[in-house]
Amino acid sequence: MPTLYHSPNSRSSRVIAQLMLMKKLDAVEIVTVDVPRHDGAGRRDPRNPHPEGKVPYLVTDEGQGIRESAAIMMYLDELFGQPFSPQIGTPDRGRYLSWMAYSGGVLEPVLVAAFSGLDHAAFKSTFRSMEEVCTALETALEGGCFLLGDALCVADILLASPFQWAPHLMPDSPAIKAWVKRVDERLDGDAIAAFEAKAMKELSALEDA
Amino acid sequence: MPTLYHSPNSRSSRVIAQLMLMKKLDAVEIVTVDVPRHDGAGRRDPRNPHPEGKVPYLVTDEGQGIRESAAIMMYLDELFGQPFSPQIGTPDRGRYLSWMAYSGGVLEPVLVAAFSGLDHAAFKSTFRSMEEVCTALETALEGGCFLLGDALCVADILLASPFQWAPHLMPDSPAIKAWVKRVDERLDGDAIAAFEAKAMKELSALEDA
Ligand SMILES: N[C@@H](CCC(=O)N[C@@H](CS)C(=O)NCC(=O)O)C(=O)O
Ligand SMILES: N[C@@H](CCC(=O)N[C@@H](CS)C(=O)NCC(=O)O)C(=O)O
Repeated sequence: MPTLYHSPNSRSSRVIAQLMLMKKLDAVEIVTVDVPRHDGAGRRDPRNPHPEGKVPYLVTDEGQGIRESAAIMMYLDELFGQPFSPQIGTPDRGRYLSWMAYSGGVLEPVLVAAFSGLDHAAFKSTFRSMEEVCTALETALEGGCFLLGDALCVADILLASPFQWAPHLMPDSPAIKAWVKRVDERLDGDAIAAFEAKAMKELSALEDA
Repeated sequence: MPTLYHSPNSRSSRVIAQLMLMKKLDAVEIVTVDVPRHDGAGRRDPRNPHPEGKVPYLVTDEGQGIRESAAIMMYLDELFGQPFSPQIGTPDRGRYLSWMAYSGGVLEPVLVAAFSGLDHAAFKSTFRSMEEVCTALETALEGGCFLLGDALCVADILLASPFQWAPHLMPDSPAIKAWVKRVDERLDGDAIAAFEAKAMKELSALEDA
């Protein structure tokens, strides 16, 4: 069984959401670990084998470590028969790969700059800004309810997640807001919240021990 | 035939190197376009359909646009039967996906910070620094000549490319230097140089017109 290192209410929560959607939460061992949080809480957890102590981190049956949400989510989707991604050779494959690479390569740097107030010429000229991100998402959403059209895919879960977790970063765009809401509706919010509350308790118990 | 929008001596040059390695340069239409360069040369090219005017950009047979080097290189490798990547379900698949996501999600932001002298707390705590990049590459290279072991894959071409094009960013690490050299040796440097010289001429001719 692969092992997912997870910390509640973090970037690994979207992997939990994905596993729940696939009904595969019990096919992956989840190890709850701590991470340093922006507010100073938390700490690097010696039980987390991620080389930099981050989450998510997945260790496969072959003992190989996978880092980066996009890679972990693609891997898990493939492991369970690709229920939420276009197969190789099908028409939407390229756009799917494009969004998966865009998530870490563009959206994340732009969001980090936005929430940290980073304003730097080279950074901006390389990654651009929320304005270009909005345009990219809005253009895609003209074609359907989700990024690839009418079917939800892994890229929707990945790219909508920052706006679900940090609503103050949500762009003032009706199309993007409606898309995030549609993604939300496909995920089991109550089950995720219950899972996270349990993981949070587990973490406090470990810390008190 | 898919169309690749390419600018000589840029991030799209690694896609040219990949196509040459696969002997598929003639199976993709290459359109040479201009881009704004760091030194102030160049300009946004109206013939480039990339929504932000960047390269590489690939337009598939279905007319879908793919951005981000990692996505384009994965797509092209898949299109031609995956000669340089592990198939879904094989043991190295997860590590391959991990390196492909790492390239845009970690290596690129860290390199942009390194060459632009960006020093910002939130940026550093999110993406870390060249030190962690070196550790990640060195750890992988303990297992073989290339990132996934003894066989070169698309991730090697992608991740070695910044060090080939900007040798001043090359870390002072014998293992990483030897790996970049091995990747270099697998690519046809003379053919790439000749191709780029021709593309450069084409570009000047267009600009003079
Ligand atoms: N691009 C990575 C980012 C991972 C990441 O930064 N995760 C945060 C959790 S929200 C973390 O582990 N932070 C703790 C730390 O950086 O030490 C991904 O999406 O997997
Ligand atoms: N993460 C993207 C970066 C693309 C990129 O920034 N390309 C540069 C060429 S080296 C470019 O087109 N710059 C022109 C511009 O930003 O307007 C990728 O690897 O595809």
